[in-house]
Amino acid sequence: MNRLEQKIISDGIVREGNVLKVDSFLNHQIDIDMLNWIGEEFKRRFSDVKVDKILTIEASGIALASVAALHFNVPVLFAKKTQSVNVDGEKFCSQVASFTHKCINNVFVSKNYLKAGEKVLIIDDFLAMGSALEGLTDLVRQAGAEVAGIGIAIEKGFQEGGRKIREKGYRLESLAIIDEMDGTTGTIKFRQ
Amino acid sequence: MNRLEQKIISDGIVREGNVLKVDSFLNHQIDIDMLNWIGEEFKRRFSDVKVDKILTIEASGIALASVAALHFNVPVLFAKKTQSVNVDGEKFCSQVASFTHKCINNVFVSKNYLKAGEKVLIIDDFLAMGSALEGLTDLVRQAGAEVAGIGIAIEKGFQEGGRKIREKGYRLESLAIIDEMDGTTGTIKFRQ
Repeated sequence: MNRLEQKIISDGIVREGNVLKVDSFLNHQIDIDMLNWIGEEFKRRFSDVKVDKILTIEASGIALASVAALHFNVPVLFAKKTQSVNVDGEKFCSQVASFTHKCINNVFVSKNYLKAGEKVLIIDDFLAMGSALEGLTDLVRQAGAEVAGIGIAIEKGFQEGGRKIREKGYRLESLAIIDEMDGTTGTIKFRQ
Repeated sequence: MNRLEQKIISDGIVREGNVLKVDSFLNHQIDIDMLNWIGEEFKRRFSDVKVDKILTIEASGIALASVAALHFNVPVLFAKKTQSVNVDGEKFCSQVASFTHKCINNVFVSKNYLKAGEKVLIIDDFLAMGSALEGLTDLVRQAGAEVAGIGIAIEKGFQEGGRKIREKGYRLESLAIIDEMDGTTGTIKFRQ
């Protein structure tokens, strides 16, 4: 098991409803050493890829993307969420359904910061149904930029997001892919 | 001028209504090298202080706090915002008025991650009226932890937040303090 998988086993908590609670080290309290390892690992896996910018989505992708950006030495852009539909000419907008909060958010980035031709590495902490990635790849497409790759810390491999993204031909690197998770026993099985 | 002040002069945009737009490098698109300098500078200024944890608030404090945490080698905890008032026994909750969005948010952290006696360095990107810091210091107080210091990237010195915080005896280090800002001419004057 890699370092993230070990951390999930030791500190992750499986809840009913396919929820994996990792808020002690990834998305509420943050283990900065763990995040630094994740950033190094993304850099290692995408070392052959030209990356101009890292794109993520608020809020739990931001820490991960920022620490990773230190290893890539590129700017980070984080998509913002809003309930309002204030479409002005200055933003690229898309929609994201939230698995956790059971609602739909509008997400946007300023057109000033996503340019045609830019090679964008998308980074996020979780991949489940793939809705956040659909929104982020849509923003990149609207800008005429290119998705150089997608880096995910934890993929719930038993949900359809990973399959949908790979079928579209994106280069997806997930550092821990969970193929089975049991809310009763608390057991977790990773994909090899 | 220090490096952040120079960046504000070159890339910041002053808008009417006392708004300073720094979204090209601090709180939408992020200049990771700039953030790393900020983190190093916070570490330098607080080098004599014992810090067990860095506390910030979503979303625009997260990148800054995470990069700073690499220099302090401590965990980061970010307070989450919610419109709902779901007070359960598991969270410390407080209220924060948003200057930008003209609304009141409930903010919370899990009781699991803020412990009595912990020495907490609060970090955020902006200080204006001081409402976010009131909320964050209140969470620390509820936990029985201690505010070891407060690190702010940009303080709007002509608004009351800085004065209120200093009057309460907190050790506040703001890397750029703006004493005057003109939305018509675009000029910015820093406190020496």
